[in-house]
Amino acid sequence: MSTLPRRLLAEGLGTTLLLATVVGSGVMGVALGDGNDAVALLANAGATAGMLYVLITVLGPVSGAQFNPAVSLAMALRGEQSVRDAVLYAAVHVLAAIVGVLLAHAMFDLPWLQSGMQVRTGTSQWLSEGVATFGLVLTILLGATHRPAALPALVASYIFAAYWFTASTSFANPAVTVARSLTGTFAGIRPEDVAGFVLSQVAGVIVALGAHRALAGKGEPTG
Amino acid sequence: MSTLPRRLLAEGLGTTLLLATVVGSGVMGVALGDGNDAVALLANAGATAGMLYVLITVLGPVSGAQFNPAVSLAMALRGEQSVRDAVLYAAVHVLAAIVGVLLAHAMFDLPWLQSGMQVRTGTSQWLSEGVATFGLVLTILLGATHRPAALPALVASYIFAAYWFTASTSFANPAVTVARSLTGTFAGIRPEDVAGFVLSQVAGVIVALGAHRALAGKGEPTG
Amino acid sequence: MSTLPRRLLAEGLGTTLLLATVVGSGVMGVALGDGNDAVALLANAGATAGMLYVLITVLGPVSGAQFNPAVSLAMALRGEQSVRDAVLYAAVHVLAAIVGVLLAHAMFDLPWLQSGMQVRTGTSQWLSEGVATFGLVLTILLGATHRPAALPALVASYIFAAYWFTASTSFANPAVTVARSLTGTFAGIRPEDVAGFVLSQVAGVIVALGAHRALAGKGEPTG
Amino acid sequence: MSTLPRRLLAEGLGTTLLLATVVGSGVMGVALGDGNDAVALLANAGATAGMLYVLITVLGPVSGAQFNPAVSLAMALRGEQSVRDAVLYAAVHVLAAIVGVLLAHAMFDLPWLQSGMQVRTGTSQWLSEGVATFGLVLTILLGATHRPAALPALVASYIFAAYWFTASTSFANPAVTVARSLTGTFAGIRPEDVAGFVLSQVAGVIVALGAHRALAGKGEPTG
Repeated sequence: MSTLPRRLLAEGLGTTLLLATVVGSGVMGVALGDGNDAVALLANAGATAGMLYVLITVLGPVSGAQFNPAVSLAMALRGEQSVRDAVLYAAVHVLAAIVGVLLAHAMFDLPWLQSGMQVRTGTSQWLSEGVATFGLVLTILLGATHRPAALPALVASYIFAAYWFTASTSFANPAVTVARSLTGTFAGIRPEDVAGFVLSQVAGVIVALGAHRALAGKGEPTG
Repeated sequence: MSTLPRRLLAEGLGTTLLLATVVGSGVMGVALGDGNDAVALLANAGATAGMLYVLITVLGPVSGAQFNPAVSLAMALRGEQSVRDAVLYAAVHVLAAIVGVLLAHAMFDLPWLQSGMQVRTGTSQWLSEGVATFGLVLTILLGATHRPAALPALVASYIFAAYWFTASTSFANPAVTVARSLTGTFAGIRPEDVAGFVLSQVAGVIVALGAHRALAGKGEPTG
Repeated sequence: MSTLPRRLLAEGLGTTLLLATVVGSGVMGVALGDGNDAVALLANAGATAGMLYVLITVLGPVSGAQFNPAVSLAMALRGEQSVRDAVLYAAVHVLAAIVGVLLAHAMFDLPWLQSGMQVRTGTSQWLSEGVATFGLVLTILLGATHRPAALPALVASYIFAAYWFTASTSFANPAVTVARSLTGTFAGIRPEDVAGFVLSQVAGVIVALGAHRALAGKGEPTG
Repeated sequence: MSTLPRRLLAEGLGTTLLLATVVGSGVMGVALGDGNDAVALLANAGATAGMLYVLITVLGPVSGAQFNPAVSLAMALRGEQSVRDAVLYAAVHVLAAIVGVLLAHAMFDLPWLQSGMQVRTGTSQWLSEGVATFGLVLTILLGATHRPAALPALVASYIFAAYWFTASTSFANPAVTVARSLTGTFAGIRPEDVAGFVLSQVAGVIVALGAHRALAGKGEPTG
């Protein structure tokens, strides 16, 4: 692990590139997809998975490569990260995610400031986000316990699957959720639907911590 | 390996997430696929492969990550698992698979209780299931003999291919077959076609055990 | 390495499963693809790559997992395999490939005996097959020299790319070429076009041996 | 590392195969894609990623497998490659890339000499190329620092993602840019747009060197 400023830089840079990928590949997929949104989502999921594999591999040794306040929360609740660091990480995640959305807009020559328009609310969507975040956090915790070297491939593969098997396309990340409320493109979400998603994600974290404890044993470290 | 309750928990959780992925990604693929079922099956196969890679990697060290009564049967017939454990595993697989189907229905806001409607019967379908299960079990047995660390990637890659090269899209799993008879979506199967599939799968297991013996030598262990 | 009968069994079983995958996934892709042959070829290439990764990983330790007379020829010309073994391997490859085509037809309830109908002839096609085989053999030889553990992923990735970047969709294998002249489906080739493909493939082998010598040094072993 | 002529041969052969893949898979994708350019780009990106994984794995031990004057520039600026070698590498990259385009045209029976027709200019496109090249060079530098064995998978995954998340489909390589101005197919670029791309790529290199210094520490070597 590096010094705190360097870690925050790594978390910020990674989160920005992640969001630029999520939003940018969605724009490209829809632009080329001839009305077939499944092809657009294949591109979106594949690009996101590829970028996650890269970012976690090269930035993991610097900062842990969380890019996700839900993961920071889990680490803090497990006592593996100080509350101060978790809060700083989460703040950087949100800011950097917003920068990533703006960067995608700039690269595709779209208005920088937009508002999400996709309706994503209701019990099914909240259940989807809860399940998606539960699976992501459990994957990370069990992966860190049993096969830490595989974490980049694990997170990438999980997210690829989760884009498809949840009705919400699996945001599973509060910073990503906030930032995606600032784009009117394929990957967007209405601002009024953000809170429900974030609460569902926090619930997913709590359940995942319990499941990890039941599966891995109370005292086992994750790394 | 962990204690039996923990192993059963791991098998159950993994099988539930697997079925939620199989059914959920099928629903999503068809919903977005603009009538192109090959795109839906690409998404379905890719999501299933991604999830299998994750689940076998993180739950394999806990319970063996079988998620499949056909694999439990093979292990019991080889004497690598007690009959009692194989029966318990298989019972958990069936129950957990059904829970996974219900979870997928809930996430996509569909009626929880459904009945499969896709006709999947006849010699070609049974041959497909026999070949699919033969290949899966042989892959697992030879993989365990020669490259155990590669098992998650092997099973994921095999299933991706088998979704496409068999006419049945390769269920290759009795618990999955039973559970998929409870969904009327893309991944479903008519309840009256379940028995033929399961018998074909058992035949595939028997042939695979013989092929493994011929290829790997009688006395060679799988792990 | 195992005894000769066991090695021939492994080569035969692997080649049969490979061809069942090549032909079966093509049939499935076209059946579901709604007239979009690029989606069918994506499925075809992905399934073939997945199966190659599996077969080379689990059968490589038994027989070398060549599944391809062009590779046997290269190994014999390099003196790494006896001429007798190369001839036996090649004979098994051709027979097993034909069995694989019949198996695919049976699984998809198609007439067992068919004749290829796709025109694949002319300079561009021959150049494509020469380049495809050159690349495949060079990949295998350099991979065996520098990263033998990566060979399954290397061959799978190469063939995925070669399905797309050559005008012939990269048969790159005389046994595959002969067998695919016996199917009238997506993956077929007219019987009268087989000879031109095989000659081009042999030329590709020769050039690859020279390139490997120039790149890896005369006396360096491949394994 | 090998002798200089052998290294130049490896860089040339790899760059030729890379460009044949980029251009050839684009032609195939459009020919089969039934007007859905997202499917064509999926094929294009997947084939390019597969080939990059292969070429970097098998030629990396011979020459470093740069295939890209932007990478040679970065290595020279870091003092890890002599200026003479970087210049020779870059010259080979450009020539070999052009050969690769001609080879793709020949394989697909197209006129050998063509001129790019796709308009790729303006601030958004330049920003895209700058970001794409920044990400590629940073991935390579951090990968070499932290996980050198993963470099082939890192570059392949990054480029797959970058095809989708940038508006320019991520050339990120001056030799590729020059060569693609010589094809009128899917992967082409107008000759008059080359200079803007190359300047943006150089800017991306400079920023990546700074970011790597900030993230990895001033004196840390890349390998």
